[in-house]
Order: sequence, then structure tokens, then C-alpha cells
Amino acid sequence: MVRLVDELARLPGIGRRSAERLAFHILRSPRDHAMTLSRAIADAKQNVRPCRVCSNLAGAPGDPQGSMCSVCGDPRRDRAMVMVVEQARDLIALEQTAMYRGVYHVLMGRLSPLEGVGPGDLTTADLLRRVDEPSANDPAGGAPVREVILALNPTLEGDGTAMYLAEELSKRGVKVTRLARGVPTGSQLEYANKAVLADAIEGRRPME
Amino acid sequence: MVRLVDELARLPGIGRRSAERLAFHILRSPRDHAMTLSRAIADAKQNVRPCRVCSNLAGAPGDPQGSMCSVCGDPRRDRAMVMVVEQARDLIALEQTAMYRGVYHVLMGRLSPLEGVGPGDLTTADLLRRVDEPSANDPAGGAPVREVILALNPTLEGDGTAMYLAEELSKRGVKVTRLARGVPTGSQLEYANKAVLADAIEGRRPME
Repeated sequence: MVRLVDELARLPGIGRRSAERLAFHILRSPRDHAMTLSRAIADAKQNVRPCRVCSNLAGAPGDPQGSMCSVCGDPRRDRAMVMVVEQARDLIALEQTAMYRGVYHVLMGRLSPLEGVGPGDLTTADLLRRVDEPSANDPAGGAPVREVILALNPTLEGDGTAMYLAEELSKRGVKVTRLARGVPTGSQLEYANKAVLADAIEGRRPME
Repeated sequence: MVRLVDELARLPGIGRRSAERLAFHILRSPRDHAMTLSRAIADAKQNVRPCRVCSNLAGAPGDPQGSMCSVCGDPRRDRAMVMVVEQARDLIALEQTAMYRGVYHVLMGRLSPLEGVGPGDLTTADLLRRVDEPSANDPAGGAPVREVILALNPTLEGDGTAMYLAEELSKRGVKVTRLARGVPTGSQLEYANKAVLADAIEGRRPME
């Protein structure tokens, strides 16, 4: 019991008290619930690996695509459009909009000169290879990349990473775009900060 | 003392306890501080009125422009560009970006069919008149309006108001734009909601 509490308390955002509450819950619940949870954790750790095309999470047990993620394995996705994200969690958030029909590329981080993270620590080379040789990693044959959408976080390091990638990609003659920046839908202008309002004025668009 | 507490407690966001604390502070502070505050409140109420051009707050005591606000009274502002906002507080937030050199129009609210607010309850007619006859209200002579930027709140009612105004304005052949909508600078994509991410994908822009 003490070991379970210790292990649970190492999860992010779970303090000692929460860990105790979770541990008691697990002890009180039916045996097969606890075993299912136990197995799910072990399986995830053993079977989930990066997609060999885009580095998204892939390889859930029974996944028919083997070492490809569910997006890259879906023949209906448009392989000519690649959206670059920092991490798989961003991809999940973007997928929830259900409006993007292209594929992704997960960088596995962002450039951070202060923390010593350079292009070699990310999947940058894989991204450039996808543009240079679309069929190299993709058993589905691939398609020439027409547009790369940089969907990095709108932060200092995200912007720096986007600038670096834009330079590398535009050398290759591919169209490079970035997500729109401005006021978030549903918000109030009077509470928006200066940088957000400046982006919104600068990027204003014709009313359609 | 009880009356002062009562009056302070009627201000928004000030509860009974805060009102008591403020009242004690006023009683303890030097006489001239309290009188200055008292006069400032009375003066504001007596002297501040809507700018006769744009309906922004105007007429602070000693204001050389008389019944014009400080933006409309500034000859360096570009009168050919009019940014439409719901209320003066939005104008103040937008001015803090220090990047907009045009003038404003304060609607004094937004269209709200549910609350019975129609175009006649706002300064819509004044806005259209500014476009139709630029010199009518403006002692500086005015200038033909080239662009109207709709800077309404990115909400359901703000959008409805923007659509109504865009229709009225485009009949008059003036260019109509709206603020950019997307991910707010400094935020994290993984925490953005679906609507914000959908706007950001839809409005993506070429990397410059």
C-alpha cells in the first residue's frame, strides 16, 4: 500500500493526499478493475511508440497499422498537407476541431537555445526528408508535399522554431503557412493583452 | 459613515467588507485627498460626455477639444480609417497597442435581439453618416472613409453586429475588414478550445 501511494504521488499534479485517496479507491474496487488498469499502464509503456512517418503516438495493441499512427494509416487523409506540431498533445487538440484533413509531423519539442535544444534533438531531419522524398518512410507511397502548416505554440520558442523551419522549407520551394494569431473566439477585447490586440489589428481580414 | 459605506458597496465588485475598508481609509486620509476624490467623481459625471464625432468619452475638464475626444482631436490621426468598437473600454485597450493610427467609432453596445437592442439603440446611424458625409460632424473637415475595421467582441452578438454593419457598409462601397481571430500570442495550443483552433487553421497565413 505504501509503495502504491508513493508511485501514484510521483504522477504530475497528484500530491500525497490525492495519491492516498486513489490508492484506497483502487484497493476498494473489484479485482478485475484494478488488474485492467495495471495492464493498461504496462501495455501503453510497452507498445506505444512513435509513428515511423510523423512521430505521433502509434502502436496501441491491435492497431492494424503496426508502426504507423491512426492519422498516417488513414487513406482518406491528404498527404500533400503536413501540419507541424511540437508534441502529440497538440495534435490531439487540433484533431478535435475535425476540420483538418491533412497529416501531421510531431517535432517532439521545440528549439530552445537556452536549454541547449537544437534541430538535432527534434525530428527536424525527418520532416525535411518527408518533403525531399515523400515516399521514403511511407508504405502508402506518399505524395509530394504541397503545403506545410507550422502549428507551433505562439510563444517565443515556438516562433523561433517556426522561423528556422520556414527558412529550411522555403529553400525547398514548398508553401509554408502558420496558424492565424489574434483574438480568441468567445473572449472580450477589453481583457485582451496588448500583444494579442496588436496581432489582431495587424492580421485583420476582409469581411466575407 | 453608514451612507458612505452604502454608496461604495454599490460599485461593481465591491462588497460590504471592501466598502467598509475603503470608507475607513477615506476617513483616515488627509482632508484634501478626500476632497480631491470627491471632486473628481462629481467632475467626471458632469463633464464627461460622448465625443460628437465618435461617441468615445470626451470633455475632461480643460480638454482643449471641447466636445471631441482626444483621438478625434488629434490632427495626426488618419481619418480615412475608422475602427468600430462596442464600448470606450475596448478603445482604451486597443490604444495601448500604440500601433493603430486611424480613428474610432464607439457603437455604445451591440445588437442583441434577445435583449431588444436594435440598430436604433446604438450609434449605427452616426457611423453610416460618417461614411456618407465625412465632413458633417467633424470641424476638422473630415476625410473620405477608405476602410472600416470592425473590432467587435469575438462573441455571438459581436459577430451578429459585425455582419449587420458589414452589409450596410459594403452597400456604400467602403472596404470592410475585421480583427484577426486565432490563437492568442503567448498561449499553449494544447489548452486552446476547438473554436479557437478551428479559426487558427482556417485563417492560416503565409510565413513572411
